Amino acid sequence: MSTHYDAGIAQQFAEQYTLPLETLRRRQSMKWQYHALEILPAWVAEMDFAPAPAVADVLRHWYLAQDTCYPYRQRDRAEHLLARAFSRYTAREFDWETDPANVLALNELVQAVYLLILAFSEPGDGIVLQTPSYPPFYDVIHDTGRRLQASPLVDNGQGYEIDFDHLANQIDANTRILLLCNPHNPTGRALRRDELEKLAALAEAHDLIVIANEIHADLVYPGQEHIPFATVAPGLAARTITLNSASKSFNIAGLRCALMYFGDGALKQRFTQRLPARILGYPSGIGIDATVAAWDRGHSWLEGARHYLLERRDQVITTVRTALPEVRVHPPEATYFAWLDFSDLHLPGAAGAYYLEHAKVALSAGETFNPGAEAFARLNFATSKALLQQILDAVIAASRRA
Amino acid sequence: MSTHYDAGIAQQFAEQYTLPLETLRRRQSMKWQYHALEILPAWVAEMDFAPAPAVADVLRHWYLAQDTCYPYRQRDRAEHLLARAFSRYTAREFDWETDPANVLALNELVQAVYLLILAFSEPGDGIVLQTPSYPPFYDVIHDTGRRLQASPLVDNGQGYEIDFDHLANQIDANTRILLLCNPHNPTGRALRRDELEKLAALAEAHDLIVIANEIHADLVYPGQEHIPFATVAPGLAARTITLNSASKSFNIAGLRCALMYFGDGALKQRFTQRLPARILGYPSGIGIDATVAAWDRGHSWLEGARHYLLERRDQVITTVRTALPEVRVHPPEATYFAWLDFSDLHLPGAAGAYYLEHAKVALSAGETFNPGAEAFARLNFATSKALLQQILDAVIAASRRA
Repeated sequence: MSTHYDAGIAQQFAEQYTLPLETLRRRQSMKWQYHALEILPAWVAEMDFAPAPAVADVLRHWYLAQDTCYPYRQRDRAEHLLARAFSRYTAREFDWETDPANVLALNELVQAVYLLILAFSEPGDGIVLQTPSYPPFYDVIHDTGRRLQASPLVDNGQGYEIDFDHLANQIDANTRILLLCNPHNPTGRALRRDELEKLAALAEAHDLIVIANEIHADLVYPGQEHIPFATVAPGLAARTITLNSASKSFNIAGLRCALMYFGDGALKQRFTQRLPARILGYPSGIGIDATVAAWDRGHSWLEGARHYLLERRDQVITTVRTALPEVRVHPPEATYFAWLDFSDLHLPGAAGAYYLEHAKVALSAGETFNPGAEAFARLNFATSKALLQQILDAVIAASRRA
Repeated sequence: MSTHYDAGIAQQFAEQYTLPLETLRRRQSMKWQYHALEILPAWVAEMDFAPAPAVADVLRHWYLAQDTCYPYRQRDRAEHLLARAFSRYTAREFDWETDPANVLALNELVQAVYLLILAFSEPGDGIVLQTPSYPPFYDVIHDTGRRLQASPLVDNGQGYEIDFDHLANQIDANTRILLLCNPHNPTGRALRRDELEKLAALAEAHDLIVIANEIHADLVYPGQEHIPFATVAPGLAARTITLNSASKSFNIAGLRCALMYFGDGALKQRFTQRLPARILGYPSGIGIDATVAAWDRGHSWLEGARHYLLERRDQVITTVRTALPEVRVHPPEATYFAWLDFSDLHLPGAAGAYYLEHAKVALSAGETFNPGAEAFARLNFATSKALLQQILDAVIAASRRA
């Protein structure tokens, strides 16, 4: 990964991969279909870019080969190919040696979190969740009858950080799982090594299983670093299941391919003794092919996307700070989301609903990430410079009318 | 469905959709990659045909649209589109009104059977399985710690039929589930209404949940009929989960899309109260699109496939009966499998292994369908006339050397 922002890389990405509104409106995707035509969408995790050539090549191959039977690659099951591609990817990107034998493939990460919570805890057990949180994780804890133990990330004026005292107080004798999201959605934090080490010490001290959702690992900005949780302390891997997928960073959520990486074989065995692996369902052949292609050959597109997204991030921060100084926002270190705190605007109602009605912009409503966070909203800035400016201008104008 | 075989339909299908050996050998599929190049494969459930135009159109659309985000169709989640397509399909093909609200989509049927057995029974409970059986169903019962209660289909000289006395004797106070496979793999039986009614009476009498795997429903031969189990008696739907997919009949297993249909809302609720629906994982957008296209617009290709497969079925039966009268085989009423009984050949070893070594033909080994059935093998005849003849000739020659 380039460690410095390069305007030329961003410019080249803009020319090759950004898409005009007419094209985006033809997308049959949740972002572009959910709302009425007059709404500009800046909510769900989709990027308004053309796919990486590596991914496009896979779509082309499936069209030309018309080969839709049980997928075998290199005389082996496609899932095994995926596991080996993951190991190449972690070794190359994070200098992390992972064992393909400890991978279980499945469709998506919400599915994975449900399965892991069912396998590694009992009803009534405590699950530590960093808040604000990706909304489905609240559902997991609720639907499985587990107990939510919130660990808030708090705004210290410079950015969001874990309140470790609060976290240590939350943990009790029936706490079983730390559900970590790093890089963090929606705050965009890429946790530092010292923060991860403190979390690791807590996990060790209280014998917690750690579900490390690292789906945004590839979307860390130049100058920042993603550190896989499982690597920060000796022995930590044995209690850590790392979740990853190319779905966010390569915009291929619709192909449904993700994986769980068990830090050691015994941990995987604990899972499969509780829940048979076949209840996961094998991912589609095309989902596996696209993921393998993305990890093996998508580097240049991803590099471009990161540099282009960094410009868009700075466009959001500069514009908001200039035009709406009452709105609190910190530059995310990772992800293509800005977590906006509209509290000081004293909007008449929840921010998400307000801007949907008055700006005709769909943000993700803050209260879905944190009960009571109606004054917040998440803005997805993975779109073209022009569309992003249109979104920001509409939000600014509606804010002034508040 | 045409009720009479039409040679013209079969001929047209042959010209348009059968593929030569060179093309098939380029397939990256289990059937064509698992064995060495010298082996002719006639085992796993893949058809050696080009896909239906409806399916090919979906592959083309995905290549052209490059639209890989969260799939939304007609301003609704893609899974809902799949559920509605299933209802159109059951109404049209089987005069069976199904409620889209009672569908749960997932990747594949083995996954579904694991989930249903976990949800509707406890460890130690009895599961009635028709034998011989699709091999993974033995694994399900074993892996979940349930008790196998075999209900053999027996050869009466004219064909395979359920031994109802044996079945009634198998059922005990802890029998919970009847795992029905209709049409039946590997015997190719399409059960008659009177047989289904007897099964329904047993299910009612012993308060069994019925898992009706009807994945081969579309591959019933002209002149035969598929009767959905859930429809054969009043109230039966309330205890029946029907499994279906376009994966077998349209040869799209690699796209991983299947569904569970709960006969009523209360039954679905019993499932989701035991296992959260999100552990299923949403199928890929392309899998859903291909399935919807197959069910909505694949009729003509499927009709052609059925007529062509009927010719291949008769080619198998005629050839085997003429050249190998010691081998017992009954014409399947459905599926593209012939279940061959080589007992009277007294082969030196298991039939599957014998023909792999001596005929260089890969059949599915009988003992994987039924413990002790080493003298049996399943032959997949969904290939071109010429390739099928090559397979049969090799089997005949090796039989004569036995």
